[in-house]
Amino acid sequence: MNIRIFITGGTFDKEYNELNGQLYFKDTHLHDLLEMGRNKVAVEIRTLMMIDSLEMTAEDRALIVHQCKHCEEERIVITHGTDTISETAKVLAHAGINKTIILTGAMIPIKFGSSDGLFNLGSSIAFAQTLPAGVYVAMNGRYFNWDNVRKNKLTGIFEEVK
Amino acid sequence: MNIRIFITGGTFDKEYNELNGQLYFKDTHLHDLLEMGRNKVAVEIRTLMMIDSLEMTAEDRALIVHQCKHCEEERIVITHGTDTISETAKVLAHAGINKTIILTGAMIPIKFGSSDGLFNLGSSIAFAQTLPAGVYVAMNGRYFNWDNVRKNKLTGIFEEVK
Amino acid sequence: MNIRIFITGGTFDKEYNELNGQLYFKDTHLHDLLEMGRNKVAVEIRTLMMIDSLEMTAEDRALIVHQCKHCEEERIVITHGTDTISETAKVLAHAGINKTIILTGAMIPIKFGSSDGLFNLGSSIAFAQTLPAGVYVAMNGRYFNWDNVRKNKLTGIFEEVK
Amino acid sequence: MNIRIFITGGTFDKEYNELNGQLYFKDTHLHDLLEMGRNKVAVEIRTLMMIDSLEMTAEDRALIVHQCKHCEEERIVITHGTDTISETAKVLAHAGINKTIILTGAMIPIKFGSSDGLFNLGSSIAFAQTLPAGVYVAMNGRYFNWDNVRKNKLTGIFEEVK
Repeated sequence: MNIRIFITGGTFDKEYNELNGQLYFKDTHLHDLLEMGRNKVAVEIRTLMMIDSLEMTAEDRALIVHQCKHCEEERIVITHGTDTISETAKVLAHAGINKTIILTGAMIPIKFGSSDGLFNLGSSIAFAQTLPAGVYVAMNGRYFNWDNVRKNKLTGIFEEVK
Repeated sequence: MNIRIFITGGTFDKEYNELNGQLYFKDTHLHDLLEMGRNKVAVEIRTLMMIDSLEMTAEDRALIVHQCKHCEEERIVITHGTDTISETAKVLAHAGINKTIILTGAMIPIKFGSSDGLFNLGSSIAFAQTLPAGVYVAMNGRYFNWDNVRKNKLTGIFEEVK
Repeated sequence: MNIRIFITGGTFDKEYNELNGQLYFKDTHLHDLLEMGRNKVAVEIRTLMMIDSLEMTAEDRALIVHQCKHCEEERIVITHGTDTISETAKVLAHAGINKTIILTGAMIPIKFGSSDGLFNLGSSIAFAQTLPAGVYVAMNGRYFNWDNVRKNKLTGIFEEVK
Repeated sequence: MNIRIFITGGTFDKEYNELNGQLYFKDTHLHDLLEMGRNKVAVEIRTLMMIDSLEMTAEDRALIVHQCKHCEEERIVITHGTDTISETAKVLAHAGINKTIILTGAMIPIKFGSSDGLFNLGSSIAFAQTLPAGVYVAMNGRYFNWDNVRKNKLTGIFEEVK
């Protein structure tokens, strides 16, 4: 069972710039994470963009929809910034793609040691193999249907809307 | 959806003894791992034993079966040494428990930094929520039915038998 | 031989705020670092401020001078942001304190895993025990006299001026 | 000021073998450690052996003495297992080499995340630059003369004999 992984950036891939003390994006760390996890599920990784999800435009989301529609795989994991992850989930759901699509993110950058990214990646790859077609957000060990999830801005925890 | 986690030891929880340079077991690191992963799935953790799976006896396995049968939860994750994990899976399957039971392990101790344990724990908690009743081994991002899995001793990778 | 450690903040102690994705200061990590290093040199730690060194004022530096003058210990380590560390070294030198004072910093926050902070702390505590009275900056495994050091803004490496 | 680093093995460089769960030696991690510490002191690294110090023979020690005598550098750091580090220090002292020689080790392998190795390496490189000719053991942030040091077997801490 092949899984497609699309990278869009987000906290997952933030790095620390030693020279100016700012956080920034360089390359994705997904390959390292999958190796660290000894992943043996066949995955195809493609970086679509490398941005903070607060800066994601309608055009960016159209690109994600296009890629999900046209890739060969029926099961997709998308790494995404957590701030607008449920918005992208909604756009994907409305596009009517008959595939299992899991959006996931991280609260702490992978490079900062105690990341939740490795845990979320493990659960996302599992959900991608076992959930029926649909659009889901996977965070905190849980999965949420696209129309029933929000990030609690005060706690940083994902929760049901209803 | 509540998940029961049973700890039995294995590489997952091995520590380094500074004084004699040997690996040993002290306490489980599962609580730390779940916190690191920002897990919000309701879990109940209980340590049944803390041993190398090469030393696991029939009596030990009977205890695991008993606990799986009699706990309240319908969904169970068991951390286990990888060397005899498929043997314990077989014993559990033959016990005819109508629950979803996921056995998982690690190739590298959690305390040694680059562990696959966090990744496996994430995928196991996801599989526990989504797979139907049965006994499975979850390693390397994949899940295997209890009667179709072995650890390749040369590579350390889990694979189908058939 | 007792050593006084004064904390002033800097990259050393920056943390990642999960909720807004910004770097900020909370508590010092010096105690953890010293424990990780199994340090057994008698040290007395005191936090004087917790700021980015670009925001350090003349008043802040006067406080540092005052504390160095009046503490009991003859040997002092100061953790400091690297951007203005040589400026503070100069102010301390002009104050004419007859003690061994080592200023040190980090290019990567301690919390981000691959930090140079532990290495710099080890060398600073060693330099504090062995160098004669004077004001020094210790970075990159080296020590510099206060009047012969600058941070190369392009490389982030410390070097002699002359 | 050039420093020679001789590698002899010890806990410093132990690794975890995933396939049999044993600790073993492969390559040294000193290069990684020096890079992590952003070290800019000119060092020349040479691996002399890669063994547990409990297995070090008189012949091995003769090799270390020979190398210390004949290398170009006047300042030397030797990484060494902690169990017999003071014995090797004694042999080096009796060889009457007129150089600054620092022996250091680690209680926790570098690969296990929370190592004291990076801290000890930082302090050893500092001591090598500042101490007069002689043979010293550097552990726990301190330095000891070769004839006044022992490892407390109960605590793992280095202490004076007298």
